[in-house]
Amino acid sequence: MGGASHIQWEGNLLKLLDQRFLPEKEDYLECHTHLDVQHCIRDMIVRGAPAIGVAAGFAMVLAARFIIQSFHGKNTAFSWLDFETQLIEAGDSLKNTRPTAVNLSWAVDRMLIKSLAIKDKSPERLLEEMEQEAKNIFDEDIEVNKKIGEWGSTLIHDNFTILTHCNAGALATAGYGTALGVIKSAFYQGKNITVYADETRPFLQGSRLTAYELQKEGIPVFVIVDGAAGYHLNKGDINCIIVGADRVAANGDVANKIGTYTLAVLAKENNVPFYAAVPFSTIDMSIGCGKEIIVEERDSQEITHLKGIPLTPRGVKVKNPSFDITPSNLITALITEYGIIYNPNEKKMQQFVEKGGG
Amino acid sequence: MGGASHIQWEGNLLKLLDQRFLPEKEDYLECHTHLDVQHCIRDMIVRGAPAIGVAAGFAMVLAARFIIQSFHGKNTAFSWLDFETQLIEAGDSLKNTRPTAVNLSWAVDRMLIKSLAIKDKSPERLLEEMEQEAKNIFDEDIEVNKKIGEWGSTLIHDNFTILTHCNAGALATAGYGTALGVIKSAFYQGKNITVYADETRPFLQGSRLTAYELQKEGIPVFVIVDGAAGYHLNKGDINCIIVGADRVAANGDVANKIGTYTLAVLAKENNVPFYAAVPFSTIDMSIGCGKEIIVEERDSQEITHLKGIPLTPRGVKVKNPSFDITPSNLITALITEYGIIYNPNEKKMQQFVEKGGG
Repeated sequence: MGGASHIQWEGNLLKLLDQRFLPEKEDYLECHTHLDVQHCIRDMIVRGAPAIGVAAGFAMVLAARFIIQSFHGKNTAFSWLDFETQLIEAGDSLKNTRPTAVNLSWAVDRMLIKSLAIKDKSPERLLEEMEQEAKNIFDEDIEVNKKIGEWGSTLIHDNFTILTHCNAGALATAGYGTALGVIKSAFYQGKNITVYADETRPFLQGSRLTAYELQKEGIPVFVIVDGAAGYHLNKGDINCIIVGADRVAANGDVANKIGTYTLAVLAKENNVPFYAAVPFSTIDMSIGCGKEIIVEERDSQEITHLKGIPLTPRGVKVKNPSFDITPSNLITALITEYGIIYNPNEKKMQQFVEKGGG
Repeated sequence: MGGASHIQWEGNLLKLLDQRFLPEKEDYLECHTHLDVQHCIRDMIVRGAPAIGVAAGFAMVLAARFIIQSFHGKNTAFSWLDFETQLIEAGDSLKNTRPTAVNLSWAVDRMLIKSLAIKDKSPERLLEEMEQEAKNIFDEDIEVNKKIGEWGSTLIHDNFTILTHCNAGALATAGYGTALGVIKSAFYQGKNITVYADETRPFLQGSRLTAYELQKEGIPVFVIVDGAAGYHLNKGDINCIIVGADRVAANGDVANKIGTYTLAVLAKENNVPFYAAVPFSTIDMSIGCGKEIIVEERDSQEITHLKGIPLTPRGVKVKNPSFDITPSNLITALITEYGIIYNPNEKKMQQFVEKGGG
């Protein structure tokens, strides 16, 4: 992205670039409470699994400050137990906004674990250290993405045309991106890269966000409709597919934006490698396989209307699953910050995680 | 559709329902010349391979009348050779509007063959008989669709959920429909049917037209984004897929709306039958295989804008192939008005066509 991050922490508030209106408008929304952040996550003002995690980290700081201030307001002495109880409630409420991506609950839990570790400190110090933890999540996310980019770029050869889906770029993370991070790293190495970006209905993350990011970077990009990916794969236009991930199960199955599974099936049929770029924090060993991952169903209006314009006859029913599950046997490799897991399966995931990724 | 056809011949002009504005507005455009019809085909005011063929039949009548009138206007005697030369030119111009569907050139050629057969008649009689031929194309198309519906309905069992793509319904034909004709026939037989309609970007034939038609018929329908078909197939929600066709090659490969190939690959992966409903006139034995079929690339604005609203950053490039090719080995069966061709291949297509379909 080059410029300012779409997630800006200003000490007492969180500013989020409103991704619903990109690329037309670059408006920031100010979040003063964790409920503001919750609204932004639910309405996809901020979206992308790692970005949601980063925003949730700061939301927990806003929640902590609000709770501490409420002791002052009520003129009661600070009670860590009351504080922690209310912080857990705020965290639960945040986690419930979007069920599929694991990074949201991962970030909330990390902030809660931090608050437990510093329970004996003063409220002011507690807040300071929680703020630092949220900043760490932000900074680490960018570092992680750059490492994913380095590993992933070894899979990208000169003159490659890469298909991607949704937006797994700077706008889906603290910055840089996972799938787009791989593409950027390869591009920065001087490789001649062309990207085909699925428009990714219904939210159009591909045509609106991925095209916007790549255009800013000067990386050649063609937007295609989701239905055209198969045509280009079959024609031999595509050298590999790279996507992000919202949750990876213990057997390597990947939950990602609706349409991802279709690309993996098409990749197999056409002998094209299919990669998912996943931060270690996206791996959820508590989930045995993809079938156990909850797939969020979003509002029908996302499909029936576009910017208020009706696209369907009035009253027509829709199904709007926001994610799908790609079984690990369709995945050529997972690209993590610690290295590449080829042909992921339960055993390889277990070994990888036991080594702490290293 | 029940009501009036979307293609209405009024003796001296052709009225076409403007499908760009459905389901919001039901506006008809009047075509007084074959050039008006050409415009309507190019801009997808009328679309769907059989419907384009039917409209082209009437366009040839409008062309014939215009040519005959021009003799009167110039006060010159009618010359059949001049007439036929100009009629062939008009036909070529019509054929060039959209390259992929064979029905367009099939209908133009049928009208030219008719004009050749009645070359010794008076201009008035010539016009009368050409008009009758265009009406025959219209009437036969509906008959053909109903027969396809009868054959196809034998493949649809009670409580089936059927996935379809684009619009292969009354709005894509003279009436009734090919893929939707099969669904309607099964529904009229009292079978409990549910339809999943891919929205079919970029022109949204599924969410705008198929949903509109099925809703009018009272057939339960859910609109899904194109990227969600794989999710529902993998979940076991779908019993079979039925699509239409724009051209069938001599080996059984099918050209149809972009996204169709993807569905066929997903059907194979998930062991779900994949059917294409094709009138005999859609089979083009002069084309050896799908790779030889010209795939129309349409304007980038179809992807970058929706009703004037930009969906992509300014200046972004797109690829907009309007069709794709499904190889015959992914097709469970072709449903024609003469019967069902299971596992189509070159030999079976040859035998089928040699018997005149019968």
